Amino acid sequence: MTARRALALTMGDPAGIGPEITALAWQRLRHTGPVFVALADPDMLAQFAPIRVVDWFDATGFADAVPVLPMRLAAPCIAGQPDERNAPAVIASIEAAVRLATSGQAAGVVTNPISKAVLLDAGFAHPGHTEFLAALTGVSGQEIMMLACPELRVVPVTVHVSLRRALNVLNTEAIVAAARTTHAALRRDFAIAEPRLAIAGLNPHAGEAGHLGDEEALIIAPAIARLRALGIDATGPYPPDTMFTALARPRYDAAICQYHDQALIPLKTLDMCGGVNITLGLPIVRTSPDHGTAFDIAGQNTASPESLIAALHMAATIAANRAL
Amino acid sequence: MTARRALALTMGDPAGIGPEITALAWQRLRHTGPVFVALADPDMLAQFAPIRVVDWFDATGFADAVPVLPMRLAAPCIAGQPDERNAPAVIASIEAAVRLATSGQAAGVVTNPISKAVLLDAGFAHPGHTEFLAALTGVSGQEIMMLACPELRVVPVTVHVSLRRALNVLNTEAIVAAARTTHAALRRDFAIAEPRLAIAGLNPHAGEAGHLGDEEALIIAPAIARLRALGIDATGPYPPDTMFTALARPRYDAAICQYHDQALIPLKTLDMCGGVNITLGLPIVRTSPDHGTAFDIAGQNTASPESLIAALHMAATIAANRAL
Repeated sequence: MTARRALALTMGDPAGIGPEITALAWQRLRHTGPVFVALADPDMLAQFAPIRVVDWFDATGFADAVPVLPMRLAAPCIAGQPDERNAPAVIASIEAAVRLATSGQAAGVVTNPISKAVLLDAGFAHPGHTEFLAALTGVSGQEIMMLACPELRVVPVTVHVSLRRALNVLNTEAIVAAARTTHAALRRDFAIAEPRLAIAGLNPHAGEAGHLGDEEALIIAPAIARLRALGIDATGPYPPDTMFTALARPRYDAAICQYHDQALIPLKTLDMCGGVNITLGLPIVRTSPDHGTAFDIAGQNTASPESLIAALHMAATIAANRAL
Repeated sequence: MTARRALALTMGDPAGIGPEITALAWQRLRHTGPVFVALADPDMLAQFAPIRVVDWFDATGFADAVPVLPMRLAAPCIAGQPDERNAPAVIASIEAAVRLATSGQAAGVVTNPISKAVLLDAGFAHPGHTEFLAALTGVSGQEIMMLACPELRVVPVTVHVSLRRALNVLNTEAIVAAARTTHAALRRDFAIAEPRLAIAGLNPHAGEAGHLGDEEALIIAPAIARLRALGIDATGPYPPDTMFTALARPRYDAAICQYHDQALIPLKTLDMCGGVNITLGLPIVRTSPDHGTAFDIAGQNTASPESLIAALHMAATIAANRAL
């Protein structure tokens, strides 16, 4: 007799919109689930919702109050004013969530937004949230970012580098690796038996037969050939401007994109704030909303919880698919 | 006493979808306008709609038949099989339309799609349709491409070059020139008294304060400063992935984009086939649908006329605004 396991929700930067969207997500989900335990400062969260402090990972009574596994802040938290003295608690919340998921107590980790700048000042040495999670779970370099909304899933091969550097580092191996990880995740996490991958070109019109660039012929087409030899339904390279139209989107399960904005522009253009960031390639389930800390509007109760709610639903769905 | 002037509609490649979408557009517009004269082969077009051959630019009786100013094809036309022997007629149609607009007989030029490859074989020496029109009207190098749909207007600063070359040729002057032409067109052609221009960054997160590229600081911010000094409401550089969201789009009248796909991906992702290509910087009005010849579906009567209809409406609106 096992109840469905709860998700671990990190606090994120407490001066951002994390606390208020956590409260709003709980309001929406309290009677339906998915249930979660917040790894946060109880006094902080109590300003936004009824809470119940728990001593271990236990979501009993979720309908009545947010279960909070305490991560105490070192300094008073003022909305919109991040304080690096609270960075250790922010980091501890992530570490605890990963431990709970790795041990199987939590079904997965959902992370509220952090500010890399604040954590960097406190000695955080990772390029970002996702890389930190990969390091904590011992798979550094294998993490792949997927962004998903109801109409589209995208995976950028190169991510947080300048566009010029993206052109310089893009290579066949990286495309193959991203596509293979995506293919495995679509099968395991999304229960798609025969995933179809659309591989984007890099240049306008996918290079127009070499007139507008040669990366399609030299780098991308060989990756597609390798993937097809592995039995993966990968097609392309597609002209980037026409592969995200309403007519084209239903023809594939995920688009493998060559650079950050090629993936994120169509996703965010479509998305009405229900976009989810999913980290593929980790041993644990991890999702997050696709927005940042939003310090500029924190504490005003105007932030939308839609992306966080979608991230919680997505994590629960992935965990359920993995358990099948 | 002057009736509203008609538009000149070129034939485009007769083996593409041009003839059938011309007929469908006429069916939709015959009782409402905008009225047009097709510069096409009468026998070809008569396969798709009732036509009336005219000896001069005259759209009388538009409700009953498509007025056709004859441009005779040299070879039989087979849908889906372009024939370079017909290239001279395709080019003559464009030249005649420009003459009619330059002389003031036509309110503007709307062009059906051509195939550059077919025309190149026949000696056509221009990089594309738009550059040919700029040459014909004596303003080579001043032409600027705008793509518009009901939700968004975008203008790419660099267009038909590889992404690597776009990075290498992007410069402050080009951004300022594109933005000034756009600003003038928004006032004159779109009747927007105080146009707001959103200038895109180039790199992820608009360079994240220099961590992800320096083009924002070195090239784009100086362009914005120059534009503002000229009294133009230009702001940015904006992170490319968040500037096209539903929340952001209403905040500007046009987005100035640094490369082809940065402009065309959001436009085509949004667009439900009503996108229009507008050439700014010409002395005449010129619009076109935002799709190609579609040889693969030509003659099957499955092509959508929506973009051509939108292009006809847009040309009529611009001509009316210019006449005020």
